[in-house]
Amino acid sequence: MSQKNRRKIMVDIDTLIEKSLQGEKLATARLISMVERGDQQTPYILEKMYPHSGNAYYIGMTGPPGAGKSTIVNKLVKLFCKSSYRVGVIAVDPSSPFSGGALLGDRIRMNAKSQTYDYFFRSMSAGRAMGGLSRTTKEASRILDASGRQIVIIETVGVGQSELDVAKATDTVLVILTPESGDHIQIMKAGLLEIADIFVVNKSDRPGAENIAHSVRGMLDRRHARLQWRPHVFMTSTLMNKGINELHEGIWTHHRYLQQNGNLEKRRKFQIKEELQQRIETELSDILWQHIIDDEKIEQLVAEVWLHKISPLNAARKIVAEWLGKGKIIQKTFSTK
Amino acid sequence: MSQKNRRKIMVDIDTLIEKSLQGEKLATARLISMVERGDQQTPYILEKMYPHSGNAYYIGMTGPPGAGKSTIVNKLVKLFCKSSYRVGVIAVDPSSPFSGGALLGDRIRMNAKSQTYDYFFRSMSAGRAMGGLSRTTKEASRILDASGRQIVIIETVGVGQSELDVAKATDTVLVILTPESGDHIQIMKAGLLEIADIFVVNKSDRPGAENIAHSVRGMLDRRHARLQWRPHVFMTSTLMNKGINELHEGIWTHHRYLQQNGNLEKRRKFQIKEELQQRIETELSDILWQHIIDDEKIEQLVAEVWLHKISPLNAARKIVAEWLGKGKIIQKTFSTK
Repeated sequence: MSQKNRRKIMVDIDTLIEKSLQGEKLATARLISMVERGDQQTPYILEKMYPHSGNAYYIGMTGPPGAGKSTIVNKLVKLFCKSSYRVGVIAVDPSSPFSGGALLGDRIRMNAKSQTYDYFFRSMSAGRAMGGLSRTTKEASRILDASGRQIVIIETVGVGQSELDVAKATDTVLVILTPESGDHIQIMKAGLLEIADIFVVNKSDRPGAENIAHSVRGMLDRRHARLQWRPHVFMTSTLMNKGINELHEGIWTHHRYLQQNGNLEKRRKFQIKEELQQRIETELSDILWQHIIDDEKIEQLVAEVWLHKISPLNAARKIVAEWLGKGKIIQKTFSTK
Repeated sequence: MSQKNRRKIMVDIDTLIEKSLQGEKLATARLISMVERGDQQTPYILEKMYPHSGNAYYIGMTGPPGAGKSTIVNKLVKLFCKSSYRVGVIAVDPSSPFSGGALLGDRIRMNAKSQTYDYFFRSMSAGRAMGGLSRTTKEASRILDASGRQIVIIETVGVGQSELDVAKATDTVLVILTPESGDHIQIMKAGLLEIADIFVVNKSDRPGAENIAHSVRGMLDRRHARLQWRPHVFMTSTLMNKGINELHEGIWTHHRYLQQNGNLEKRRKFQIKEELQQRIETELSDILWQHIIDDEKIEQLVAEVWLHKISPLNAARKIVAEWLGKGKIIQKTFSTK
């Protein structure tokens, strides 16, 4: 790339960043797209946006496919907008390579309404996310934050690790269940009790809704002593338009809890620490493969593993030990000098 | 733990290993359980089993939920068993915390048949797998291999990364589609074209089956020049009992291809290399967090990130640069000495 072109792109990015910071949605959308596809300007974008973030309230929402998450999000967004909050939504599509058109259809319809209310909607595909869903979602939500969205909602289908990722990126986590969600043992196994700040039993007009609410409350009772915040359980029926106002109020109750005794600070610092650890590992492994590890040595060990002369684990340990061993010898010589 | 207890456990593990190597299924199942839950004896088990592995033919099977994967696996297992092969199956459950009883029910029914045929069936939950699905599946399949299973089938629901994981652990990958699987753009996007050695269009009795087969063949045509092995496309209907024999024959055709020109060696060496890289990173990061990184320093940076004085990325880079910088100074002093 010529110097001139590079400069032009940099200027464009600075313009995008400036416009996004002023709240322009198109600019924000373009920045998120760049971060999502792992554009090389990503660090620059994040660096410029980060100082302006930190003002938004992050809400996470997870639950099984078909629990009615997006309908609940839509209704909550409406309520937030009516109270004049600027809202941003990131919806993470299930990453199955085999499906994935239906969701998008809903979303396009929903976006049409954003002319009535001031909100920003963004769909992200877990499959497309460069550098892992957890990282990309976090970065996108920070951009929304910096662009002036006061409430950022991250919605994700609870498949695999995504429900844990959402807990790492938000202040208040809603877990949506339905009478069909399966028994409470599954909920406990999956660690949902640990991540939920609020439980929502949606489709509460169907049989079994009371049962699941009861069973969730029972589990919470048994853990109460250990919990600082006892998750509230709400019954909603988007079909009958019931319970949404109460849920909305319940979210603000948790928000008030976070404002007390440094609870928000504790939570976010914990998240930052985890993020730092991940980033340190990524940075280090990048350097490792680019500059340090000897490819010839690896090939030689690959051949030995292939011939079953050494196991993969031992081969890996050999490399690491050798590398650290060298370091040690160097250090020793240095310190005794 | 007392010396005596530790010794007793070691003896028990050696007995288990010995029994598993002799083909005893219960012992094999127990070893796999230990590996799955990340028992501290895992390295020991793998070390003992590894030299005895390397004889099995690994088949991977992936596709969307409801494509009929397990029915196809059942039918293939039957055919393999009829040819007197000892077969082992690892079925990876979708890891949704919200569902997951139904599958297991099928499996229990299926296992009852293993008295007629000599095969070993094992269900693994992606959620339970310690150290990542890809690693645990690989380790379990190697144990099956060492225990004398001549064909090891890994079946996984294609959600997220699992279809790529299965490609990293097997010699022949079957991708199962149905007329409902969605259009071919999705298939290309998901990189299924890259991992599939065999495409299966199941439920071929339904409308649209010819269409999807045609569209897959068209995509393969456009890539043919670059492909060494052109994936075959099979039409099956487990309902009508059609196409399974042809598919079975097609798997052996790919097996014969692997035997030529060191194709299997190339493939497995590539997989081993990837595995080594992953393991080196894991080992190194374990050491990093246990011995090297200064927790006080991290806490200080966490506080700065929380106050938005520095971004998470820059904070991470600072730590890494500092650590490597120290190393450099030491090395420099040493080399100029």
